[in-house]
Amino acid sequence: MAGNTFGQLFRISTFGESHGTAIGVVVDGCPPNIDIDLAFIQSELDKRRPGQSKITTQRKESDTVQVLSGVFEGKSTGTPIALLIPNEDQRSKDYGHNIDIYRPSHADYVYDAKYGIRDHRGGGRSSARETAARVAAGAVAKLVLKELGIGIFAHVSSVGRIYAPNLSDLELDELLRIREENIVRCADPATANEMVSLIDAVRKDGDTIGGQVSCLVRNCPAGLGEPVFDKLHADLGKAMLSINAVHGFAYGSGFAATEMRGSEHNDIPQPGNGYRSVTNHAGGILGGISNGMDINFTVAFKPVATIMHNQQTINAKGEASEIKGKGRHDPCVVPRAVVIVEAMAALVLADHLLRQKAISKSSFPSQ
Amino acid sequence: MAGNTFGQLFRISTFGESHGTAIGVVVDGCPPNIDIDLAFIQSELDKRRPGQSKITTQRKESDTVQVLSGVFEGKSTGTPIALLIPNEDQRSKDYGHNIDIYRPSHADYVYDAKYGIRDHRGGGRSSARETAARVAAGAVAKLVLKELGIGIFAHVSSVGRIYAPNLSDLELDELLRIREENIVRCADPATANEMVSLIDAVRKDGDTIGGQVSCLVRNCPAGLGEPVFDKLHADLGKAMLSINAVHGFAYGSGFAATEMRGSEHNDIPQPGNGYRSVTNHAGGILGGISNGMDINFTVAFKPVATIMHNQQTINAKGEASEIKGKGRHDPCVVPRAVVIVEAMAALVLADHLLRQKAISKSSFPSQ
Amino acid sequence: MAGNTFGQLFRISTFGESHGTAIGVVVDGCPPNIDIDLAFIQSELDKRRPGQSKITTQRKESDTVQVLSGVFEGKSTGTPIALLIPNEDQRSKDYGHNIDIYRPSHADYVYDAKYGIRDHRGGGRSSARETAARVAAGAVAKLVLKELGIGIFAHVSSVGRIYAPNLSDLELDELLRIREENIVRCADPATANEMVSLIDAVRKDGDTIGGQVSCLVRNCPAGLGEPVFDKLHADLGKAMLSINAVHGFAYGSGFAATEMRGSEHNDIPQPGNGYRSVTNHAGGILGGISNGMDINFTVAFKPVATIMHNQQTINAKGEASEIKGKGRHDPCVVPRAVVIVEAMAALVLADHLLRQKAISKSSFPSQ
Amino acid sequence: MAGNTFGQLFRISTFGESHGTAIGVVVDGCPPNIDIDLAFIQSELDKRRPGQSKITTQRKESDTVQVLSGVFEGKSTGTPIALLIPNEDQRSKDYGHNIDIYRPSHADYVYDAKYGIRDHRGGGRSSARETAARVAAGAVAKLVLKELGIGIFAHVSSVGRIYAPNLSDLELDELLRIREENIVRCADPATANEMVSLIDAVRKDGDTIGGQVSCLVRNCPAGLGEPVFDKLHADLGKAMLSINAVHGFAYGSGFAATEMRGSEHNDIPQPGNGYRSVTNHAGGILGGISNGMDINFTVAFKPVATIMHNQQTINAKGEASEIKGKGRHDPCVVPRAVVIVEAMAALVLADHLLRQKAISKSSFPSQ
Repeated sequence: MAGNTFGQLFRISTFGESHGTAIGVVVDGCPPNIDIDLAFIQSELDKRRPGQSKITTQRKESDTVQVLSGVFEGKSTGTPIALLIPNEDQRSKDYGHNIDIYRPSHADYVYDAKYGIRDHRGGGRSSARETAARVAAGAVAKLVLKELGIGIFAHVSSVGRIYAPNLSDLELDELLRIREENIVRCADPATANEMVSLIDAVRKDGDTIGGQVSCLVRNCPAGLGEPVFDKLHADLGKAMLSINAVHGFAYGSGFAATEMRGSEHNDIPQPGNGYRSVTNHAGGILGGISNGMDINFTVAFKPVATIMHNQQTINAKGEASEIKGKGRHDPCVVPRAVVIVEAMAALVLADHLLRQKAISKSSFPSQ
Repeated sequence: MAGNTFGQLFRISTFGESHGTAIGVVVDGCPPNIDIDLAFIQSELDKRRPGQSKITTQRKESDTVQVLSGVFEGKSTGTPIALLIPNEDQRSKDYGHNIDIYRPSHADYVYDAKYGIRDHRGGGRSSARETAARVAAGAVAKLVLKELGIGIFAHVSSVGRIYAPNLSDLELDELLRIREENIVRCADPATANEMVSLIDAVRKDGDTIGGQVSCLVRNCPAGLGEPVFDKLHADLGKAMLSINAVHGFAYGSGFAATEMRGSEHNDIPQPGNGYRSVTNHAGGILGGISNGMDINFTVAFKPVATIMHNQQTINAKGEASEIKGKGRHDPCVVPRAVVIVEAMAALVLADHLLRQKAISKSSFPSQ
Repeated sequence: MAGNTFGQLFRISTFGESHGTAIGVVVDGCPPNIDIDLAFIQSELDKRRPGQSKITTQRKESDTVQVLSGVFEGKSTGTPIALLIPNEDQRSKDYGHNIDIYRPSHADYVYDAKYGIRDHRGGGRSSARETAARVAAGAVAKLVLKELGIGIFAHVSSVGRIYAPNLSDLELDELLRIREENIVRCADPATANEMVSLIDAVRKDGDTIGGQVSCLVRNCPAGLGEPVFDKLHADLGKAMLSINAVHGFAYGSGFAATEMRGSEHNDIPQPGNGYRSVTNHAGGILGGISNGMDINFTVAFKPVATIMHNQQTINAKGEASEIKGKGRHDPCVVPRAVVIVEAMAALVLADHLLRQKAISKSSFPSQ
Repeated sequence: MAGNTFGQLFRISTFGESHGTAIGVVVDGCPPNIDIDLAFIQSELDKRRPGQSKITTQRKESDTVQVLSGVFEGKSTGTPIALLIPNEDQRSKDYGHNIDIYRPSHADYVYDAKYGIRDHRGGGRSSARETAARVAAGAVAKLVLKELGIGIFAHVSSVGRIYAPNLSDLELDELLRIREENIVRCADPATANEMVSLIDAVRKDGDTIGGQVSCLVRNCPAGLGEPVFDKLHADLGKAMLSINAVHGFAYGSGFAATEMRGSEHNDIPQPGNGYRSVTNHAGGILGGISNGMDINFTVAFKPVATIMHNQQTINAKGEASEIKGKGRHDPCVVPRAVVIVEAMAALVLADHLLRQKAISKSSFPSQ
């Protein structure tokens, strides 16, 4: 079973290679009568597209999205929504020198091992260009979540050894405004400046650097998540780990929990309506099911593998070779990854929302 | 869509509550003509069962597995293998006092929120007792992997702030022998002693503590993993995050990658057959596909929520309540979790092995 | 991907061979808080079990069902419901003479071709004994449908060339009462007598005979069915064709439609609330979606392959062999198949009910 | 779970409405290194497209297919193959008069009941235009099957009460040549002439007529089909029933089996290699698994609902209305359905081929 489909009820199938005709996505299972705001979908893509600033790749792609189906007079009809993003700036010749050489820490070797054939132009299907399709689909998911008032916000929480402070309690709209005022997409302006300087320095070295994206979900109703395998955080984890360059996922207390005692880790619920505790080590999820509090998690990105240095490697015959990065690549992936993390989170939540609707006797408030 | 099924081609469905009649699992998709070694399956369960040592819960369950179907004269037949584990020591009365009280950091509240009904005896379906079914199914998966020589080994790599050194290059059999000589299941004897002392001290405090399990997969062929969503590490991550009490997952360089530069993180492949690099920051997986090197990953477990202290909490009416842990619980979950991590890893690998067989023109060597 | 799971949201996985320890089923996705009436489930199984009358096999099986999980204090909890039916009368020695001989029109050869191994005792997994698990799961589905007032009724509409008249407009309860008054389960008493005589004569010849089961669904809400592939009648068709010995499926006007003109086939909707037409050639389904009228379909069963005559055949080496049916078999499968048809219909409807709930803004009336 | 995806391992997702921008399909799971012969795919579409002859609709659509992804230098790469077919002749104004009127025996009412919104232009998603996407995907599946020498042939076996004789034993290429020499696509020239005359007469009456398509699969290896639910004929049945206007499916002896005795229905296998019987009532499938003989089945199509007569009906308010068919429609759907039946059969077989490959120790001959 090939792996280009994600989700059960709100389900997407992406297609397309980095240097082919187009990439795209079919969204199946979107409830009918949702306002499909095309301008919003495009604005999400604009946050991911290349060439935004000096710290992203200088490739030029407008990433203009087309709606092929599933929307009638601005509303979803319940039929599949196909979204297409034509490829524009496909300088395949940048890759001509790499046909037989396996780039270090890239997927070239494994694609050959798996399929026995490979579209070697710019990574083909393994290119992060595929994530544009996810962002478009995730924007549709966000429009669904918006109907219930569920909000998602991610930002760059670290670059290298520079870490942002924890997010404040500001409204998501305000956090978004602050985040978009800097090119690294960190919600703390002072930290953002440091991050930009670091990335710029790394870029001038012809090198790359890793970082983290942290995500917050507000106003998620209690009850989402399907034990025992499709726990909400398990599906969020899979979604994030499926993004290019991700090496780790943690939610709530994360890896820090491993050093804690139960007596300090336990969140103590407070009297009143619903579930509210002072601490939120649970990250809004208990037993794999949302408890109604803020959901938070963090995603670890490795440094981009393409660097502008000479590197030893092997070719398809297993012989020693050398490669030097050409093309136009990101020195740090996290500024553009923020909206991808949000998109994948939205897809997971929309899917689990429908899954919970299927079995619940009571509907959710605004439905 | 309920979430009690895991895997696509090698697929398991578990059932059963902690204090019901039995728990069990249906394994569908096991290839025919595999030796189903019942003694091996039982020995795996013995590593997970309660009451093994002073640092695990003192509940007594023999966890004796029965094969109901799918095996004929010691061989798998290609039909569903149903495995049943009757519950024995179900002291439901230990839980009588908790009917209306939501235990802090447990799933009581969210099960009520999700389903509007809950089997309150010992956590019901949210109990880690369900993982016995996974261990039994995982043992079948290990028998499938054994046919290709694929080996899986996990051990406790940290408890609290005590961390084991990296695994040596010993054979898996030897690592296993060393691990099983101590009750905490750490492959480093000196560290194991420290860990046991810590857990014992925590237990005497009536408290609990978190820890990590690290896992190694040897001799996995290149080519397993299905881009773009069902990347091998994404499915491993989901599998691990679906285990009770897990708060994080990382593979290869993990979160440390976020502080590294590309020039230090890139693994440089060496000339020769197949793919071999000196460093293995990739953790054996590139672009979501195994590259033939060792696969390694780490799983973070929070401290067990049930402690023997008085804790403030709320009841089903949202009123302030107090709870004191009774029953018999683990002071630290990782010694028993080692075999669960291995089982889930085996299930993911067996599944992806079949998925790759479906599309490849060439079979794997020993098939 | 093995094929022992049916349904998407209301999903069952069956297991077990005819002469193994037990057969059973895991029902995943049953909504919580449904009354799980065990006596009703058992009464459904009683309609399928062998040894009911002179025109069914004389094997003796009580087919007593056990609930292993998912039910607490008589209610579904939303967790998997595992149902177990131990095998009792497993005269495997009846089959000892058949180990190497492929019975004509049985699955012996193809199981060997597919799996390279076969549990040769009584057909193993290919035995219709597996349908007992479907009937148990279908009974749970009926309990779900009952909450919405949806009723399902099937009866024997033909045996050989004896055809029953179309069903009258009586209430389903009344039709059921009439049907259960005769051992062939035809809702027309006069036809039933003819059918019984025919089957009895066939049985005395050591032969078998085919027949049809027709099914009626009343009070199904409009809107069930998922275009374009999971049309309601397509899923009903697959469900029916998956029952042992079925060779055909037709709904509404069925094959007769192929001889009709549009001007006579079109159903003309009448003014008023909802959709009501005088004719119902559509069989209650338009474009794959229920229209709120009665759903009706017919299922064609071939004659049972095991006959009490000498038959030429081949053995596993491809050599000419002879076989004579022993064991205890049904001369006609349709009287016991009636409740299997109902069960599979209930499973399809419960599944599509949940699927529609997932996307609809308005809930169904009684939910 | 929406229903626009078909297949498990060889899996397609279609999208697009009759009067939108385009229709298309994503084929996921196509093995790598298959020759993707675009001219062949187009030639298959040409057999389905409107405007072919006087007995099909006079709409003009070139149905030119574009490959967006998954093919590199003429070969499949193992990544999703996206195929796009732009819509050209979308005379939406033909439908302007129907906005609020539910056409008799069309899906207008049920789409409104299900989704609460409807793209009323020409049936939207319920239009048979969607089947062009299936034909394109089915052509890819045929190219996969071709590698194993598996051939599929369908033809019109009845129109109204005119029935073709059984297919002769000619080679499939020869049958195809004969079939394509007449516009009704019947492999018997004399019958074809009668059918054409009948359809032409019906067309002149402004009426429509039903018919049947019969399909033959040659050289299918034994072992395809997954008991107990995903039997080969069950998946074929679902595939056929999912085609617009289909009301019935039967394989092998079909409904005639219901009138037969076991002693006449049983196929007697002959000594020699593999499985060969003189009769083939089984239709090449036993116990849901292919036995290596020819597979055959028949599909029943109702008459097209759109006729050129005045018809009584209702509008969206439930009031009496009248409608007269306008637009350009087929008087009989079967000549264009032949290639759709073949396409769906190819998709089922390719899927089951991969499913069997996943579990079998031995590969198929030519793989």
